[in-house]
Amino acid sequence: MTRDYATPTMDVQNQPDNRKIEIDKVGIKDIQYPIGVLERSGGTQRTVAKVSMFVNLHHKFKGTHMSRFIELLNEHCQDMSTTTIPGLLLEMRKRLEARDAHIEVSFPFFILKRAPASGAEGLMSYDCTIRGFWANEVVLEIEVTVPITALCPCSKAISDQGAHNQRGTVTVQYRQNRFVWIEDIIEIVEAEASCDVYSVLKREDEKFVTEKAYANPMFVEDVARSVAQRLRAHEGIAWFSVEVENQESIHAHNAYAYLERPSENKH
Amino acid sequence: MTRDYATPTMDVQNQPDNRKIEIDKVGIKDIQYPIGVLERSGGTQRTVAKVSMFVNLHHKFKGTHMSRFIELLNEHCQDMSTTTIPGLLLEMRKRLEARDAHIEVSFPFFILKRAPASGAEGLMSYDCTIRGFWANEVVLEIEVTVPITALCPCSKAISDQGAHNQRGTVTVQYRQNRFVWIEDIIEIVEAEASCDVYSVLKREDEKFVTEKAYANPMFVEDVARSVAQRLRAHEGIAWFSVEVENQESIHAHNAYAYLERPSENKH
Amino acid sequence: MTRDYATPTMDVQNQPDNRKIEIDKVGIKDIQYPIGVLERSGGTQRTVAKVSMFVNLHHKFKGTHMSRFIELLNEHCQDMSTTTIPGLLLEMRKRLEARDAHIEVSFPFFILKRAPASGAEGLMSYDCTIRGFWANEVVLEIEVTVPITALCPCSKAISDQGAHNQRGTVTVQYRQNRFVWIEDIIEIVEAEASCDVYSVLKREDEKFVTEKAYANPMFVEDVARSVAQRLRAHEGIAWFSVEVENQESIHAHNAYAYLERPSENKH
Amino acid sequence: MTRDYATPTMDVQNQPDNRKIEIDKVGIKDIQYPIGVLERSGGTQRTVAKVSMFVNLHHKFKGTHMSRFIELLNEHCQDMSTTTIPGLLLEMRKRLEARDAHIEVSFPFFILKRAPASGAEGLMSYDCTIRGFWANEVVLEIEVTVPITALCPCSKAISDQGAHNQRGTVTVQYRQNRFVWIEDIIEIVEAEASCDVYSVLKREDEKFVTEKAYANPMFVEDVARSVAQRLRAHEGIAWFSVEVENQESIHAHNAYAYLERPSENKH
Repeated sequence: MTRDYATPTMDVQNQPDNRKIEIDKVGIKDIQYPIGVLERSGGTQRTVAKVSMFVNLHHKFKGTHMSRFIELLNEHCQDMSTTTIPGLLLEMRKRLEARDAHIEVSFPFFILKRAPASGAEGLMSYDCTIRGFWANEVVLEIEVTVPITALCPCSKAISDQGAHNQRGTVTVQYRQNRFVWIEDIIEIVEAEASCDVYSVLKREDEKFVTEKAYANPMFVEDVARSVAQRLRAHEGIAWFSVEVENQESIHAHNAYAYLERPSENKH
Repeated sequence: MTRDYATPTMDVQNQPDNRKIEIDKVGIKDIQYPIGVLERSGGTQRTVAKVSMFVNLHHKFKGTHMSRFIELLNEHCQDMSTTTIPGLLLEMRKRLEARDAHIEVSFPFFILKRAPASGAEGLMSYDCTIRGFWANEVVLEIEVTVPITALCPCSKAISDQGAHNQRGTVTVQYRQNRFVWIEDIIEIVEAEASCDVYSVLKREDEKFVTEKAYANPMFVEDVARSVAQRLRAHEGIAWFSVEVENQESIHAHNAYAYLERPSENKH
Repeated sequence: MTRDYATPTMDVQNQPDNRKIEIDKVGIKDIQYPIGVLERSGGTQRTVAKVSMFVNLHHKFKGTHMSRFIELLNEHCQDMSTTTIPGLLLEMRKRLEARDAHIEVSFPFFILKRAPASGAEGLMSYDCTIRGFWANEVVLEIEVTVPITALCPCSKAISDQGAHNQRGTVTVQYRQNRFVWIEDIIEIVEAEASCDVYSVLKREDEKFVTEKAYANPMFVEDVARSVAQRLRAHEGIAWFSVEVENQESIHAHNAYAYLERPSENKH
Repeated sequence: MTRDYATPTMDVQNQPDNRKIEIDKVGIKDIQYPIGVLERSGGTQRTVAKVSMFVNLHHKFKGTHMSRFIELLNEHCQDMSTTTIPGLLLEMRKRLEARDAHIEVSFPFFILKRAPASGAEGLMSYDCTIRGFWANEVVLEIEVTVPITALCPCSKAISDQGAHNQRGTVTVQYRQNRFVWIEDIIEIVEAEASCDVYSVLKREDEKFVTEKAYANPMFVEDVARSVAQRLRAHEGIAWFSVEVENQESIHAHNAYAYLERPSENKH
């Protein structure tokens, strides 16, 4: 449905609703659009995002104006960063005559990495989501998922040789006190695993990462705690959560750990 | 990793951790297991679930005991209903020596429906999730997703003939004051759409559902509000959220509406 | 749409089509239904399947009769094994007056496994698909996906300690000369990996599987070849394909190997 | 694993294998990489792809050289079109010393569309895959998925008012006699549905698409046949398949139709 406001007297969505029920969020979900995102190295990276945009709807109105969301997205997609999203939320509140506005932008973010021994280059992809909402004040929440290698301490301790290890993912969500580059958070996570992962690994690199992981066995609990210590000490971060999920090589199911700070009874 | 407690002096996970960081949730994620679920018509339905089970971990311990979760699941999977899950959470707290316990069980639930004109029978599948957590007290949250037909009021009003319509889904999450059958909630949702959907529809049924949907045009906002009114009036329900998502036939993206009650400033 | 045949003079789908274009496959896709499947240990296992059912459509007819597919599924879902599916295909050809019939049934299949050292029991889940088609003759194709542990020979050879390993999956598709139990194929695959995986592993089991994998390093190519040798020697199997995919612990992408026999220029 | 060729005497993958089993395909699967794709309007579109790259492996070698695939991808990702992929396949055959090479590149492709009445602009996203393989000769296969509106002829004929309609998808796969723009194929499909879909629809556009769909009722069979007629008449196309899948608004399951031409006994 389009819900255009061109002729107010004929708009079904402008008709009154008598049930006195406000809608918390209404809008468009999962539209795929090309976007631009700022890079720490300077410039803008072109990538592809899934975007959802919502506003609240006052109890007296039957429906919102769906086409306005996409018109706004079309105007703003060239630069979807934590610096520009508050302005887009303000536009949404005006254009849709709403009190609250929400946006969610999910996209892969690419970083050039150099293999640890050979220096061979390759692009790594990190799934990110920026969530913004304006209800009284602007709140931005950034999420990034980082693939890692995790090697089991128990397996290493009890086995004569070797130790089971696996690909894991660490998903950090955070809210900022000040602007923080996504690249900084990725670097923090990659330093707090048994080892980080790479697209390109030559012979000497494979030896390096195998031995490094073996020297740094970590449970999902260890990874969660190590990352949490780093984020807790980061003065640019006001709130965070850490989620670690290992695709256990010896099971069909995954191991999982989660914590968030601050929360009611923890520090 | 297994983290067995057989020989405490050798267990890596029983080793102390000095960082004073409690883990909010740790355990197993997404193990697929056959389960039994109670049916309103009497008896137990056999279906297949994805199960996740977590406990908290005191800051002084390095890791939890992963294999105990699956042993518990194996013992309890025959009956995973809101009546038995609190007992399983208690067992988890004992067996894993934890203060908090969490479980999430997601499964398709089958109900026999009769087509509205012909009475022809067919099974409909509804995706459900039961979430239980014990932190101070037991909280159970049930989620069910119901497919519906939604026909657009605006399209109907402005077009000479016809109206665009589409498959939608309504996802209700709720917490109970008393035991409530999932079947009751499904019936409530199916009554508050342009029309509900069926597996088997004969000729006369197709005429019935086409005309019924045309007579009951509803935006995502309308479906959300209608379902909310019914749940708000249901004395067995203490809290609920309603999420409606239409796979719009005229767009590649979806329309979406969400509300929850009670919440801070709404009733 | 239902496309019922109750009143032939009024059926849109029985109207003629003049474009002289036969449809290779038409029908229903991805309906979720509970089914029964035969177990080698005797008896029938209850699980949940995604089912698709198609027939060909002669060029002179405008459309098929969709509701008949689901009626047939409802009648036959209690026993969906390679022994009963040919009968269902015959029914489809009759009931839909078609020359060709196709069915695809995808479901998780559960097997009780005992941990290798402790004997502790747990259920393992294996994703299976049975594809049947009747075009001239009945052809049945069975597919099963088996999770495994794969340890890298190169990493082991070049590193001072340890070796990267990961969860992998082996997907076998096969056509039978005679009835073959899915359990037999699963056992073949599980014997031809660095190690197989388990739901429950106690302390002594974790040591066992870690050391076994370390003693049996295998590239994706090795796993594919080892499984292929076993299947090629199996007189019950007329054709097979083997697909191995490792969730590499040192990369974000996967390693992959595939082969099928017989094929034009290989034996 | 990296399988680098730096020191041949030490390479595990260069060791001999005695089982005389050739591997049909081995390589990397599902690496996410930014790519450039040619646009009919001139210039190159930046998007994000999932890429898989394989070669065959002669029976005498134990393993392939995984890192070379990614180095090649890094060199070629700026231009991944049907004009450049044959060159990349040739490079793969050389760099990996193989007889056969395969590549699969899946990406969203964006096209600016103007709403049919208002002319309002918005970007539409179409999922595409280019598959290339060199085994004796180069074969390129292009796949594109186009969302459409499909309105049911039977529902329209038997109902007093309205007709159920839904979002559908048409997936065309084709092999070229000569270069064919993806945009041309998308336009063909969009012309052969009840109606095509748009990102932005104003009031007057919603009326237009509703009425157009109502005037053009089509079963999945009709859409498949109409698209097939157009592709069969297209002298640039040597082979094609058409797959239509409707997310039926009156069911939880989908309707499906498929055909390919040429095939053994059809024209």
